[in-house]
Amino acid sequence: MGIKNAFYAQSGGVTAVINASACGVIETARAHPDRIGKVLAGRDGIIGALTEDLIDTSLESVADIARLRHTPAGAFGSCRYKLKSLEQSRREFERLIDVFKAHNIGYFFYNGGGDSADTCLKVSQLSASMGYPLQAIHIPKTVDNDLPLTDTCPGFGSVAKYVATSMREAGLDVASMARTSTKVFVFEVMGRHAGWITAACALAANNESEAPHLLLLPEIKFDEARFLLRVKESVERYGYCAIAVSEGLCGPDGKLMAAGMTDAFGHAQLGGIGPQIAQLVKDKLGYKYHWAVADYLQRAARHIASRTDVEQAYAVGKAGVEMALAGKNAVMPAIRRLADFPYQWDIVEAPLAQVANVERKMPAEFITPDGFGITAVARNYLAPLISGEDIPPFKDGLPDYVRLKNTSVVKKLEVFSI
Amino acid sequence: MGIKNAFYAQSGGVTAVINASACGVIETARAHPDRIGKVLAGRDGIIGALTEDLIDTSLESVADIARLRHTPAGAFGSCRYKLKSLEQSRREFERLIDVFKAHNIGYFFYNGGGDSADTCLKVSQLSASMGYPLQAIHIPKTVDNDLPLTDTCPGFGSVAKYVATSMREAGLDVASMARTSTKVFVFEVMGRHAGWITAACALAANNESEAPHLLLLPEIKFDEARFLLRVKESVERYGYCAIAVSEGLCGPDGKLMAAGMTDAFGHAQLGGIGPQIAQLVKDKLGYKYHWAVADYLQRAARHIASRTDVEQAYAVGKAGVEMALAGKNAVMPAIRRLADFPYQWDIVEAPLAQVANVERKMPAEFITPDGFGITAVARNYLAPLISGEDIPPFKDGLPDYVRLKNTSVVKKLEVFSI
Repeated sequence: MGIKNAFYAQSGGVTAVINASACGVIETARAHPDRIGKVLAGRDGIIGALTEDLIDTSLESVADIARLRHTPAGAFGSCRYKLKSLEQSRREFERLIDVFKAHNIGYFFYNGGGDSADTCLKVSQLSASMGYPLQAIHIPKTVDNDLPLTDTCPGFGSVAKYVATSMREAGLDVASMARTSTKVFVFEVMGRHAGWITAACALAANNESEAPHLLLLPEIKFDEARFLLRVKESVERYGYCAIAVSEGLCGPDGKLMAAGMTDAFGHAQLGGIGPQIAQLVKDKLGYKYHWAVADYLQRAARHIASRTDVEQAYAVGKAGVEMALAGKNAVMPAIRRLADFPYQWDIVEAPLAQVANVERKMPAEFITPDGFGITAVARNYLAPLISGEDIPPFKDGLPDYVRLKNTSVVKKLEVFSI
Repeated sequence: MGIKNAFYAQSGGVTAVINASACGVIETARAHPDRIGKVLAGRDGIIGALTEDLIDTSLESVADIARLRHTPAGAFGSCRYKLKSLEQSRREFERLIDVFKAHNIGYFFYNGGGDSADTCLKVSQLSASMGYPLQAIHIPKTVDNDLPLTDTCPGFGSVAKYVATSMREAGLDVASMARTSTKVFVFEVMGRHAGWITAACALAANNESEAPHLLLLPEIKFDEARFLLRVKESVERYGYCAIAVSEGLCGPDGKLMAAGMTDAFGHAQLGGIGPQIAQLVKDKLGYKYHWAVADYLQRAARHIASRTDVEQAYAVGKAGVEMALAGKNAVMPAIRRLADFPYQWDIVEAPLAQVANVERKMPAEFITPDGFGITAVARNYLAPLISGEDIPPFKDGLPDYVRLKNTSVVKKLEVFSI
């Protein structure tokens, strides 16, 4: 089909390694000038395509593109903008094709989670039905680790390494102070629908005396009495209790516990589930507590990224371009595990029709029968994902992250309102 | 005075590098077997001395003592236990001397902040008045950076590096998402009485467009209207606003804002000042927000410690022993700054009488006239303290921290109740 430009966009919540995927896409595309012209990135994700707000990545230096590999967050901007069905969002889908035509785009690389896989599939279907030649490839990314058909999702391994490291460090702190001060530490982590990140906290412990002593997973309905009993046991046995809690913890009624937190005036409570659990322990058992909510710190923590995760993020970007060059369409490069220790993996092709709208939950056999921990099977799955370090370069004492020029491509079409 | 044993204890809140000071004390003591016998550590700080619960560090291997240098928190345990005046706490002070006599202790190394400096001075005075020969040396440590006569306090530089790194990373995340999602990010950090840690967050920004855009320092009374105006300006100019807030932020009445947070039933609010500020922005300006509270994560984050801080922590431990060997008493090894860029420093002797009960505040000239930022003078002071990395060894994807055997010394005295 001659030389065509490629479109690349970042979608949804960003991660410590999504730019490593961007790096993989752009470097690999640049290595094939006979097939791929420029990589044009959407400014702020798919919104950039809809509004014809495209970034000309060919104006970035080789060195700066290489620096994307160690820079967290979304270098071109991302967005939360969900395209619905082809019928409901036909205007937007057709606009995408118009923009791709206007800028000679033959490759569509969409870097995101489950929703983006669905969008990517629809773009592929529409372009086919409209007779516009386009190869749509989904590049997986999500700290939620909930995409099917892939061993893990780039972004997750680095969050896992961050939360396990933080839990180990804070656990040592609490253990030092517990005799006269804080006895209970609660660490709230991300993962609204599945407990992957909470489970990863457990990697911090070498044995049952070490932090964390309890996990509160979103898969297990919160049982206050059983929880308090376990906290008390831990404090009496080890002197302290460290708890990792998922932001998605649900009560006995199956509803999100954080969602129902309002004050007497009906205002939403300020704190999250972490402080709520800490306060409960204080009220019922009287122990002094501390709590931490890492929030964006966990998914942006490129300084403590997993080398495995960085390599996989780059690899799926690279493989996405290679699949496109091989004539593939509506596929996602997926990670296949070949061995646990040492971790071995390769990249395979997953059809988007089997990826879109399928959410991978944590298997029941990953959770201990008491519901407060993870099994050896879970450890064998999780441990390889945090292996290896990939410390970014530092300048003046801080990680030296790139900020690209992000020069706009001249617009050719009329304004489109979103 | 022949060979005497040394007593070493950790006091108050622990840090990422207090064990580096312990390492400096123990390694230096071991290098002088003609003068110093064993280093006996107090289990859980000064409580270990009062209860004669001593740890025989001579039973730890050379390798494990060396690993203290890269292990956060208190390897022997710490405590919050304040000795009052010699009159009010005479029973405790005399017990300390009894324990020192029973275990042939001639050197007292107390590793802590302002309160410990005061205790150390009193132990020195009492031993003199009781005719018991003891050299009492205070080893400085506090993330609060509030000790006088020293350029900085070991522990602070590593927290500063952690909060600036975290702010830079979370700032990039928010910038990526701001168009359709989070526009305001609030990061709550430690420092109840002085804004040193909050100020250090500002090192994350290379220019005024980068995070953090606003600091809420405990030195400046919170002015809601002016604050909200600045948040709005930042969002309109840069697309987002990142804010670092001190846990010690005070309202117009001079009272801690976090302290007064109760719900309609009079229960203490769960969240800290960070979520409170975020909620205020949402209520008044309507912007979507996120907030993070790093809590113990910041002071335990040995994985991102400042090399300068680690070196200083070790150096004050080493110098403390050398001062003791030189016959000094009631002194503290202090850090003296010789040059900013590159940072040059040495260790000098500070008399404890001038250290105890003196709290160093952040100078007024460190804060910009608008109260929301720091000056170039402050940057010149802070930047050297985070310079250099000292990444700990990793094992199985996580920092490999030492856990000592901590074998107890056989008790010789009667039980003492505290």
